[in-house]
Amino acid sequence: MGMWVRYSGFNQTLFELITIGYEILDGRILNTNSKWLAEKITSMGGRVVRMVTIGDSIKDISSSIREAVKRNVDWIITSGGLGPTYDDVTLEGVAKALNRKLVLNKKAYEMLKERYKMLAEQGVVESSELTPSRLKMAMLPKGARPLRNRVGSAPGVLLKQGRTWIACLPGVPAELYSIFEEELQPLILKTIKKVYKADITLHVRRIAESSIAPRIVQIVKRFDGVYIKTHPKTIEDGISKIEIQISAMANREDVVKKKAGEIEKIIKEIVIEMGGEIYTVES
Amino acid sequence: MGMWVRYSGFNQTLFELITIGYEILDGRILNTNSKWLAEKITSMGGRVVRMVTIGDSIKDISSSIREAVKRNVDWIITSGGLGPTYDDVTLEGVAKALNRKLVLNKKAYEMLKERYKMLAEQGVVESSELTPSRLKMAMLPKGARPLRNRVGSAPGVLLKQGRTWIACLPGVPAELYSIFEEELQPLILKTIKKVYKADITLHVRRIAESSIAPRIVQIVKRFDGVYIKTHPKTIEDGISKIEIQISAMANREDVVKKKAGEIEKIIKEIVIEMGGEIYTVES
Repeated sequence: MGMWVRYSGFNQTLFELITIGYEILDGRILNTNSKWLAEKITSMGGRVVRMVTIGDSIKDISSSIREAVKRNVDWIITSGGLGPTYDDVTLEGVAKALNRKLVLNKKAYEMLKERYKMLAEQGVVESSELTPSRLKMAMLPKGARPLRNRVGSAPGVLLKQGRTWIACLPGVPAELYSIFEEELQPLILKTIKKVYKADITLHVRRIAESSIAPRIVQIVKRFDGVYIKTHPKTIEDGISKIEIQISAMANREDVVKKKAGEIEKIIKEIVIEMGGEIYTVES
Repeated sequence: MGMWVRYSGFNQTLFELITIGYEILDGRILNTNSKWLAEKITSMGGRVVRMVTIGDSIKDISSSIREAVKRNVDWIITSGGLGPTYDDVTLEGVAKALNRKLVLNKKAYEMLKERYKMLAEQGVVESSELTPSRLKMAMLPKGARPLRNRVGSAPGVLLKQGRTWIACLPGVPAELYSIFEEELQPLILKTIKKVYKADITLHVRRIAESSIAPRIVQIVKRFDGVYIKTHPKTIEDGISKIEIQISAMANREDVVKKKAGEIEKIIKEIVIEMGGEIYTVES
């Protein structure tokens, strides 16, 4: 399977994902949060440009946040390290990176009060008291606001530094999913640069994937915002079949349709020139 | 489940893992290579301090390599981007980061000649000829040496920059596993700082995990190279049970045993002071 992509030449909202936790670094846990976030972001038209995983270390967290802010991405999303225990230091790291203080946030305080009241009523915890370790989850970097967590205790956190939005989510997958979908997604959609996509799939006979590959490379080099994939299909009665999947991307709908059409035309010409045959076109 | 760890205070061989490929960043593929490598490295006594994923971009690859070299880690292991297609640019990125040229490596050339001769004989490829895209896999940064790939075509690559070893592995998991285990692991084991570990598990009754947690935090803060985990067990006949798992780490065997013993003693005293009971000790 060949895959060629060129993301440059159109504007996309750029994301950097930072995962925090020694349990990923020592191989105990697979980083499924980043994949889940990346799929979501991609389907919303955004683009993840970097994923970083570091341990529960204030120094590593703050340096990673600082580097991402310097890279001028639109969004930084962290996951992990928001809980009540002493090794949950994400917000300390973020505060340090941005030279902000951690201050008691009233809204987060109310959320936690409500949460522990409910948990005490249900008998899950002995007391609804906001102990120091519980209060810690309401200490947010100055200027931040909490994102309601309907599944667990630690609220998510949202703040802005210069042009970059920073969102901190818990590492527990169910909590991350919930805060992302209910609280963060609507905000992201407001900031996202609209990207239009046009997909065309050509079903081709009598051409080997390896023969057409170098020609496709040339096409991808000529166009911005192009993604072409080839899938070899089973050979039937000695006739090889491949699928060529074209995706064009652009910030305007008319541009993307025109571009996809041009690429389709060029590939059709190449296929015919090479003695192949197009038997179906899906778009 | 509570987990407390303090990795400082003893010497470990440090690793940074760099994964290269747009298919990870856009959420199509889960990064299982990093987890696999991290597990291997951890079990060998090494420590992964950072995982980074970037796209098939020379600029991002070279900046990531440069940053990792600056962080003075012992090993950088990259995966992905070694193949024959134009978007496999890992070695170009590495060469750029280290200001080295890409030169035809004789050993890599012989490996590829042998490989394509075999594939042609088996009828997998039409010709054994080393086309430009195949030859590309023998163009290594100056001073590098190839690591034999017994599963696929692209050899792995090994080089040293200052005190940092850099190994580049293919992204296809089976190829990565094979090169790591057969070629890289013996080299890593030679460089690895020996770390001794002593494990003790205490089975405790009549204490809640949340009550003992703050005391365990204090212990972890006092000792270097300590890893303590608590697992709540099911409550039977109204009696709560927890497991406390102690791991001490150090560069000397006598030190690690002494340390584990001291921690065991302190925890036993705390348990008894709190009215709990230790009914089994495993070590």
